[in-house]
Amino acid sequence: MTAKSQKNWTGEPSELLRVGEGFRLADVDPSATPGYDGGKKSAQQDLESGAAELDEYQERLFAESRSDATNAAVLLVLQAMDSAGKGGIIRHVVGSVDPQGVALAAFKAPTKEELAHDFLWRIEKELPAPGFIGVFDRSHYEDVLIARVRDLAEPTEIDRRYDAINDFEKRVSDGGTRIVKVMLHISPDEQRERLMERLERPDKYWKYNPGDVDERLLWPKYMDAYQLVFERTSTPWAPWHVVPADSKWYARIAVQALLLEALERVDPRWPAPTFDVEAEKARLAAS
Amino acid sequence: MTAKSQKNWTGEPSELLRVGEGFRLADVDPSATPGYDGGKKSAQQDLESGAAELDEYQERLFAESRSDATNAAVLLVLQAMDSAGKGGIIRHVVGSVDPQGVALAAFKAPTKEELAHDFLWRIEKELPAPGFIGVFDRSHYEDVLIARVRDLAEPTEIDRRYDAINDFEKRVSDGGTRIVKVMLHISPDEQRERLMERLERPDKYWKYNPGDVDERLLWPKYMDAYQLVFERTSTPWAPWHVVPADSKWYARIAVQALLLEALERVDPRWPAPTFDVEAEKARLAAS
Repeated sequence: MTAKSQKNWTGEPSELLRVGEGFRLADVDPSATPGYDGGKKSAQQDLESGAAELDEYQERLFAESRSDATNAAVLLVLQAMDSAGKGGIIRHVVGSVDPQGVALAAFKAPTKEELAHDFLWRIEKELPAPGFIGVFDRSHYEDVLIARVRDLAEPTEIDRRYDAINDFEKRVSDGGTRIVKVMLHISPDEQRERLMERLERPDKYWKYNPGDVDERLLWPKYMDAYQLVFERTSTPWAPWHVVPADSKWYARIAVQALLLEALERVDPRWPAPTFDVEAEKARLAAS
Repeated sequence: MTAKSQKNWTGEPSELLRVGEGFRLADVDPSATPGYDGGKKSAQQDLESGAAELDEYQERLFAESRSDATNAAVLLVLQAMDSAGKGGIIRHVVGSVDPQGVALAAFKAPTKEELAHDFLWRIEKELPAPGFIGVFDRSHYEDVLIARVRDLAEPTEIDRRYDAINDFEKRVSDGGTRIVKVMLHISPDEQRERLMERLERPDKYWKYNPGDVDERLLWPKYMDAYQLVFERTSTPWAPWHVVPADSKWYARIAVQALLLEALERVDPRWPAPTFDVEAEKARLAAS
């Protein structure tokens, strides 16, 4: 079920990258390009033809939702260590789609008001409406990642959250939203290089935050927290995918392929007219 | 002050298209291409180089806002008769920008809850945050356009709204948001053709609404309502621009030029680092 436009995959990206039974994050090579039988150049071409395919899927998804025939939506959840390329995915993969059909939400450190509610309160409000492709730049998973690494909540509370997330995602999925969860996986060395670049270019200073190095020093604890996330929340209705991301081109083509597969499974159709086409033509011609 | 990337303008689009003293909508030819010394092909090239310029401006605007140095934002307000090309502008002009820096709001017929509040209540909530390019697809102007044409409010209430809009926009402008108001102006014949196309293609049926013809029959009343809007709400802090839109390529290049001029006036700069660059380099290298 690989997307038509992407000819260089040796298998289905959703199968190749899915977190299944016995998955170990430590065994994933962040510099690998699994299942893609081509290099940067063919990936660029695939990305362009994929963009055209994504564009039509998005419009059909949106069109169908206007007809009340379906509640279908798609939700891409992006998680990663700093500088792993979430922004690039949003810009180059999501950015190729008509902005009128995209609902983007970036989750920062929770505000005082947000902290006063259950951790899923602010998430619920940003779920995509029918017909939309929603994108979460960070998500409710921060509440079991940084929250665990930095002891921002009691262990019993964090433990409760995994099941709460599964129940929540089941409800969202049952409601018609196809959830695509992606962790972009880079190596600590690649991160150092990318952060260093931000320190070398005055037009990149604004992207650098000294706190990024503090988080970086906790790398092994973060990887453990991700491993736990995968073990406890990769479900049949919302499986995780780990995308090696040291090669930006690979990460982009892989996430695009995952989105295309999700939309192919939704299979949105142009809705039938809700009016008499010939009568309307006559009325319009006379106006 | 024409944008660097757009070489084919004979003057500043913001001057050429601005609604000033004595403006009469009836005198504007929707098929004209005022001030643009080129055709569809050179417009396509200008649109591409303009997209690159817009991209950098957007990133600088966003970057500067992160530094707390400024509250600057830009707000594009789009108004038009059906099928005049708002969607195309959003897709092809706004859509070229990183979606992470764009805040898009589409205003439909107000809900019961919205109607229970002042007409600006729902508008206020969608104003762009500092650093963002906001886009209103329809706006508070519906409350003096369709509201006037369809008698959806008392004449005294509609009359009150013009001044309320001016005060509101003054406050928004004083707060650092540069407002760019655009009416896309098509002819009734062009509209008939575009609506007819929607009736001839099954992948366009979903865009057709029989109500569009009902509105179309009120064309002269709408033009009168627009004329009044221009007379009462084209202010120094938020002037109107009327963009002839029978040629889609012209409307797109013109709106892009208006956005570029607005950003050029904001003139956002890469912010200085808020940390010791060399110390951070050493700390990062050691990590």
